[in-house]
Amino acid sequence: MAQLMECIPNISEGRRTEVIEAVANAVRSVPGVTLIDYSSDASHNRSVFTFLGEPDSVAEAAFRLARAAVEHIDLRVHQGEHPRMGAVDVIPFVPVRGMEMEECVTRSKALGKRLSDELDLPVFLYEESASAPHRKNLAAIRKGQFEGMAEKVLQAEWHPDFGGNRIHPSAGVVAVGARQPLIAFNINLDTPDVSIASRIAKIIRESSGGLKAVKALGVMLEERNLAQVSINMCDFHQTPLYRVLELVRFEAARYGVHVVGTEIIGLSPMEALIDSASYYLQLEAFDQKRQVLENQLL
Amino acid sequence: MAQLMECIPNISEGRRTEVIEAVANAVRSVPGVTLIDYSSDASHNRSVFTFLGEPDSVAEAAFRLARAAVEHIDLRVHQGEHPRMGAVDVIPFVPVRGMEMEECVTRSKALGKRLSDELDLPVFLYEESASAPHRKNLAAIRKGQFEGMAEKVLQAEWHPDFGGNRIHPSAGVVAVGARQPLIAFNINLDTPDVSIASRIAKIIRESSGGLKAVKALGVMLEERNLAQVSINMCDFHQTPLYRVLELVRFEAARYGVHVVGTEIIGLSPMEALIDSASYYLQLEAFDQKRQVLENQLL
Repeated sequence: MAQLMECIPNISEGRRTEVIEAVANAVRSVPGVTLIDYSSDASHNRSVFTFLGEPDSVAEAAFRLARAAVEHIDLRVHQGEHPRMGAVDVIPFVPVRGMEMEECVTRSKALGKRLSDELDLPVFLYEESASAPHRKNLAAIRKGQFEGMAEKVLQAEWHPDFGGNRIHPSAGVVAVGARQPLIAFNINLDTPDVSIASRIAKIIRESSGGLKAVKALGVMLEERNLAQVSINMCDFHQTPLYRVLELVRFEAARYGVHVVGTEIIGLSPMEALIDSASYYLQLEAFDQKRQVLENQLL
Repeated sequence: MAQLMECIPNISEGRRTEVIEAVANAVRSVPGVTLIDYSSDASHNRSVFTFLGEPDSVAEAAFRLARAAVEHIDLRVHQGEHPRMGAVDVIPFVPVRGMEMEECVTRSKALGKRLSDELDLPVFLYEESASAPHRKNLAAIRKGQFEGMAEKVLQAEWHPDFGGNRIHPSAGVVAVGARQPLIAFNINLDTPDVSIASRIAKIIRESSGGLKAVKALGVMLEERNLAQVSINMCDFHQTPLYRVLELVRFEAARYGVHVVGTEIIGLSPMEALIDSASYYLQLEAFDQKRQVLENQLL
């Protein structure tokens, strides 16, 4: 079973099609890498790319993407609603199959060094790759944005991990790191009372004492006239899908409210879904690596 | 997403290691084919091979396996407990990914013709490939075994589909066909009373009026002192895993008996497991092809 790594970089360009295409082509230029998706938001002036493949190829594609972004994007003239600090803003590596997190961390550090050496780009390591706890969170690193970054990097606690205490004049800085796959999982309730969804969201999310690696908000689905618990599952190994669903179901019962359905937005790794199948089917000692047919391929 | 086809042929040799290895090497000789597993039973004097890959390669590997079996195995001197009719006894093709059943049927017929043309082997098409309803079931075709086959093929209803109304002198005949993947799914009950498992098995199996494509038996697990409903799921598209489990749970409740756990023996296609995850997680409109990360690979 070949190793699989995913990469989901964000660049600070969501308007100029020719630049977005040039960056997409940089990814496509690496054999063995599958560019699954890329999408742009004009008001954010930002694009996100998703690609997948064997780790060496994915790391090479990430480098070429960064090189194309640095070449075409000048943060000094960039405007958009989304916070940003670099032409290529963030590059996460995600282990998908046959890889430990530690290997993604090692590869993210190697990429960080290369971005500094070859593109003269200062690099912050974040998430699992962070060099200190206060540097794990991307929002904390990005605070101050491109415009404030030249000053921020002079502070001892915000020295970049590679590339010196300075910014690239046009391309700013970049965050590179390893993290678990993120699953966007929403649970719909048979009530139009959004305050119930908000109370449940507060119970389940880690930040208010709930489940590890879970972010959640109550939102209203106007078109269906029902409330939804909108969830980001940031580490399905720590908190699996079924546990979140059953806890939501359990808490909703207090209000006589039921789960009418759920949705996964975008992609989910096979493992997260089979893990929940395994729970509900009460499978004893099921070994995904050895017993899922598709995992037997070389 | 590349197409994937599985093949699980049985040969009438489970004792002579050098023959089993020669047959395994015939499969391995085709690039792009992954020989997942092969196992032999000496008392049955029979071996089963499991391999997987892109359809053209799998069909070629199946041909080479048959050629090696015909070369090395002489049914006139074969003894074993398992019923058999050929040196290579049966060759099923199974659609795994990106394939319809119809394409497997077409490919099984092409292989049957080739086995007849190039190896002089009479061929019965069975299961989804069968040329008449009474020829779908392998056991019905095999009845009479090698020793009775020369006479059986003279009967109009048992003329082979390819190769004439005769048998190969040493290699007999072979059944070739397409079928759905089979999942061996066992459900353990918290009772040592095997008659309860047997009664539930009778309720769920198709042959006594239960669920489509389900075979089931009650058996005793002596080492755990509990009864088990032992199930073959012959088409998880028609009857999914969760439906069998929940029906067994429901019927067991009549006796105050509970499901303590389940097991999948051997391999399961990813799709069958994600299908059950999707049911229990109450996913609305989840599209495996588009939303499972691994399915995005070329």
